[in-house]
Amino acid sequence: MSSKIVRQFKFAAIQLHVTADKEANLAHVRDVVRQAAQSGARVVALPECFNSPYGPKYFAKYAESVPDGATSLLLQSLAREHSVLLIGGSIPEREGDKLYNTSVVYDESGRLLAKFRKIHLFDVAIKNGITFQESSTLSAGSDLALFDSSFGRFGLGICYDVRFAPLAQLYAKRGAQFLVYPGAFNTVTGPMHWELLARARAVDNQLFVALVSPARDPDASYHAYGHSIVVDPWAKVLAQASHEPTIVYADIDLDRVDEVRSQIPVTSQQRGDVYSVEGK
Amino acid sequence: MSSKIVRQFKFAAIQLHVTADKEANLAHVRDVVRQAAQSGARVVALPECFNSPYGPKYFAKYAESVPDGATSLLLQSLAREHSVLLIGGSIPEREGDKLYNTSVVYDESGRLLAKFRKIHLFDVAIKNGITFQESSTLSAGSDLALFDSSFGRFGLGICYDVRFAPLAQLYAKRGAQFLVYPGAFNTVTGPMHWELLARARAVDNQLFVALVSPARDPDASYHAYGHSIVVDPWAKVLAQASHEPTIVYADIDLDRVDEVRSQIPVTSQQRGDVYSVEGK
Repeated sequence: MSSKIVRQFKFAAIQLHVTADKEANLAHVRDVVRQAAQSGARVVALPECFNSPYGPKYFAKYAESVPDGATSLLLQSLAREHSVLLIGGSIPEREGDKLYNTSVVYDESGRLLAKFRKIHLFDVAIKNGITFQESSTLSAGSDLALFDSSFGRFGLGICYDVRFAPLAQLYAKRGAQFLVYPGAFNTVTGPMHWELLARARAVDNQLFVALVSPARDPDASYHAYGHSIVVDPWAKVLAQASHEPTIVYADIDLDRVDEVRSQIPVTSQQRGDVYSVEGK
Repeated sequence: MSSKIVRQFKFAAIQLHVTADKEANLAHVRDVVRQAAQSGARVVALPECFNSPYGPKYFAKYAESVPDGATSLLLQSLAREHSVLLIGGSIPEREGDKLYNTSVVYDESGRLLAKFRKIHLFDVAIKNGITFQESSTLSAGSDLALFDSSFGRFGLGICYDVRFAPLAQLYAKRGAQFLVYPGAFNTVTGPMHWELLARARAVDNQLFVALVSPARDPDASYHAYGHSIVVDPWAKVLAQASHEPTIVYADIDLDRVDEVRSQIPVTSQQRGDVYSVEGK
């Protein structure tokens, strides 16, 4: 990692079309990361569950060891080959007899910067029929992933983690400038809350936020919302996709973080004598 | 207070036209609270700074003792007369040589349920010229106002307080079902963040949120955004004003709080072993 931070860079959120064919998914990743890098992106983020269909019934079959499995090794080589910071969405991870929903991050030289396991498992039962019990197959992580890169300090969450404000608050308190959440909301919660949550995390913590979704596959059992989005520290939407496969680009300027924080000093005017958000 | 909670009720947010004439303002309050009650509202909320123009230069002149000053006594009598829970927006309060931005709440029998002093003073300097230094004249409160009423458990904040997520999180953690923020955003921050913040507090804490603004007065030195808003625990906007004087009504059903929390159990799935929001 360079000791000098690149403060202006192009960010790419890859809204990948994910199929049941793992090899095809990985070949596709290879193509789109190259495409993003050729378009000038220096930081590239993949979506949640990009080498496997999304759903508890698939996790065991597609799971790999991380970071020594095939998918991690591919990400490492792509990061190095294209000299990008590669935020590896998430994949099902196997460790012993446990499965996790896990993200890995590699820097431009292929060095592993972070490994993050989804902290909040998606166990919900919405009235109209959307039910999910990730915890029936997955185990939850318990560690934040705050990491420094040539492009500033990042924090990671995966999908449902974005609903839990204290996670973002802890990252912000520890100096994060950019939060990236690979995520696959569905077509019920997506229209209600996807953009709202991205903007809420941004306005409260005054930093950049990206939510990176797979594209929607009408033939899959789970219909992802799509709408990959990048929001600036004013909570302004810089770019947002629809639900088709695409790459969402946004020009990031880390100076905006400091600028917003100096204009509306929410960050420095926290009343630590009245409340605090603490990590354990 | 009745021991039985009324779970379905009509809420009124009064977007008051506030002038430099204090007596006229209070007469106006008398009229609109009566109007709201006659329309069936059981809980009535007034805006920030409803007996005085908004701005540091006015606070000392309009300040009163609370709750034994004339404005508080008026609110008390109106609550009793109309048998409403009256959330008294805010007024400049004088105690000794200090001034505060203070809200008082009276129940249907005229009993004082809460007194709240704005915790976060609005000291900002936005690039395009909006600058404010409330702390040049006001002192800050340090106490939350969580109170039980016949209509459930409420938490209070005033205006800039809404930007500080941990305040709302503490209220939610302590059982609040409805957060009310009298507030007077301006015409720069309002379009950017007013609705977003109302919905952010609601989606994160899964409770009702109301932001209650004065109407915009083009002749005043401070142009309030208006747009008084009521949001449900799904972060759905139930009602929102434009910037003219009006009363915004919303039908509240406290069962929605429990319903939303059981469907997407953000509240119960907090990872207390990873983070926590603590009061001091």
